[in-house]
Amino acid sequence: MDNFTFYSPTYFVFGKDTESQAGELVKKFGGSKVLIHYGGGSVVRSGLLDRVKSSLSASGISFVELGGVKPNPRSGLVYEGIDLCRKENVDFILAVGGGSTIDSSKAIAAGTLYDGDFWDLYSGTPITAALPVGTVLTIAAAGSEGSPNTVITKEEGMIKRGSGSDLLRPKFSILNPALTQTLPPYQTAAGATDIMAHLYERYLTNTKEVEVTDRLIEALLLTMKKETPRVIADPDNYDARANIMWAGMMAHNNSCGVGRSQDWTSHGIEHELSALYDCAHGAGLAVTMPANFRYVVDHDVMRFAQVAVRVWGCQMDFTDPKKTALEGIDKLQEFLISIGMPSTLEEVGGSKEDIPKLVQMLTHVNGNNGTISGFTTLDEEDCTAIYESMLRK
Amino acid sequence: MDNFTFYSPTYFVFGKDTESQAGELVKKFGGSKVLIHYGGGSVVRSGLLDRVKSSLSASGISFVELGGVKPNPRSGLVYEGIDLCRKENVDFILAVGGGSTIDSSKAIAAGTLYDGDFWDLYSGTPITAALPVGTVLTIAAAGSEGSPNTVITKEEGMIKRGSGSDLLRPKFSILNPALTQTLPPYQTAAGATDIMAHLYERYLTNTKEVEVTDRLIEALLLTMKKETPRVIADPDNYDARANIMWAGMMAHNNSCGVGRSQDWTSHGIEHELSALYDCAHGAGLAVTMPANFRYVVDHDVMRFAQVAVRVWGCQMDFTDPKKTALEGIDKLQEFLISIGMPSTLEEVGGSKEDIPKLVQMLTHVNGNNGTISGFTTLDEEDCTAIYESMLRK
Repeated sequence: MDNFTFYSPTYFVFGKDTESQAGELVKKFGGSKVLIHYGGGSVVRSGLLDRVKSSLSASGISFVELGGVKPNPRSGLVYEGIDLCRKENVDFILAVGGGSTIDSSKAIAAGTLYDGDFWDLYSGTPITAALPVGTVLTIAAAGSEGSPNTVITKEEGMIKRGSGSDLLRPKFSILNPALTQTLPPYQTAAGATDIMAHLYERYLTNTKEVEVTDRLIEALLLTMKKETPRVIADPDNYDARANIMWAGMMAHNNSCGVGRSQDWTSHGIEHELSALYDCAHGAGLAVTMPANFRYVVDHDVMRFAQVAVRVWGCQMDFTDPKKTALEGIDKLQEFLISIGMPSTLEEVGGSKEDIPKLVQMLTHVNGNNGTISGFTTLDEEDCTAIYESMLRK
Repeated sequence: MDNFTFYSPTYFVFGKDTESQAGELVKKFGGSKVLIHYGGGSVVRSGLLDRVKSSLSASGISFVELGGVKPNPRSGLVYEGIDLCRKENVDFILAVGGGSTIDSSKAIAAGTLYDGDFWDLYSGTPITAALPVGTVLTIAAAGSEGSPNTVITKEEGMIKRGSGSDLLRPKFSILNPALTQTLPPYQTAAGATDIMAHLYERYLTNTKEVEVTDRLIEALLLTMKKETPRVIADPDNYDARANIMWAGMMAHNNSCGVGRSQDWTSHGIEHELSALYDCAHGAGLAVTMPANFRYVVDHDVMRFAQVAVRVWGCQMDFTDPKKTALEGIDKLQEFLISIGMPSTLEEVGGSKEDIPKLVQMLTHVNGNNGTISGFTTLDEEDCTAIYESMLRK
């Protein structure tokens, strides 16, 4: 196991009706003037936004609002949020929504206190200050409610970049599984896929002797395998939603990823899809993961065989472990299809003609010099082969 | 799943040579005058204490020292620590040792800022202030490095009581697995047993639909099952020590115990053993757990069968699930014996004659009125039967 530090200071408030505590939590963590940041109509229509506002008012907290966050959140709205926070002397940002809203809130939080273009903070400049952020989560997916990370897309060139700092870890996160019951099945499934991807990205390691984190990742994958089909079949199943929601946080606060190298090439390959086609991140990952895993399986056949046996219930083929390894990848893909996720590039809006552009963006734009690295190193030829293997057969 | 809050703000610094960061970490968390609190000779003999002092000095932190913490830490030393902290204007407590040292440090931290007898804080008075605590952990066992809890024994009557508060969560904990390599095998095994008990106490729940935490607990038990025999056979196995050390923290910071009722009757039954016989807490738990589990197995046969199959590799007997349930308890006990732990009351210094006294203490002294409750409710007759079943056959 490698040396590591781990720090997850977020105060989690989990369960039914917990959004009513938003006001007292903002107060507990020092906020007095809040920016409520959210996405589209669903938090308005469901009455959640009103309940949150009532809670803030009841605690004597004043607020301004900024809606309009889109999936794959954009820099334009971040600039708008920064201006608003400065003008209104906001001292706390409350994200009401999913990963996109939380990521946009983190960008505004850091950008407000940065003397320059916030995009610098997504281009290598370290974050040294940020307004405190709290969250009211409405979808189990990105894990941003417990993570130090944020991903923003710059409209100009549709460049998607991540940043991170312990300063961006939410002060509190309100997790009410009931709020996820009204999600369309496709969004629920895309969120579940994102959670599973966060687990696979950590599972695919080159670090030896990491039994404890292997087992923790498998535990969360087993949970997703059991609970996801239940919520697809019965969206109102609170308990299954609750299990998924805690798994989603644990999958990405890194308690199961410490002390080991991680992969993240599937996320890299996918980011170009959602940047170019604006598809759901989880849907892109459903297409990307099996293709990437089949391409790199020889790098560590026994690791893929281990997850196949321990999570997917495959029988180990002791004379041909690769057969077991590939069977586990097939089972993952069958599972993702069964919950309604796509399996081809075409289904997320892509086509063969775009592949050179996708590869060029992936391997050259975001600080890469012709390759991407994680579990293995992939060059342009490798990435081309992976994208091509996603095409409809 | 039940509603819950979860808060684990400790900054963990894990790995080789990390004790050299003690000084900068104390500074990072605002300390300037430290009480170094420790136990006996091993931290002195190993040179660890000197390395910690050098690190403090290099960061310009001054300190006073208080050694002498014993297993099942006593109130007498806590009073001494409180006096010292007040006299020396200590503003940070650094525990260098295991769970006993950390628990004693937490008691001193709260007691120093309490205007009255610190024992009140172990008798129902809530903790409202405490000095910050940091830890340098030397044994994987109690989980106190990541928990809000502390247990102290009052010499007068040998009364063992717990207390807890988020204010007592360590600001930082330094976890260097190499520091545990010099432990005698018995202590290593007793520590591992304590970790496994923390997991079983959470596993034995009456809350339905808790797949995510069931799976996380099983993941940590599987880790202990694999790694503990390896360190008993090869005490210098750093990687196995590292897996155990992270499992020990995760077992008790409650990330795997949220949203579910928990048991803790095995700990209660054991506390009387270590209070009366001063045996190692883990050794007492090795005797207590199988006896308690066999007594209550009928309360939820399928739960015991589940852990038997998922952790202990038992084949499910679908015509007689109780057979599988009991086989899992047998396997747990065989495992504990195989790592050198006792299995009878006599081995921890007890005898049949003491049972009425043990039962009286257990069911009447610590705020109990004739029963103890957790997974089930146990009255005096039940507790007598459980202690009697621990006697040598």
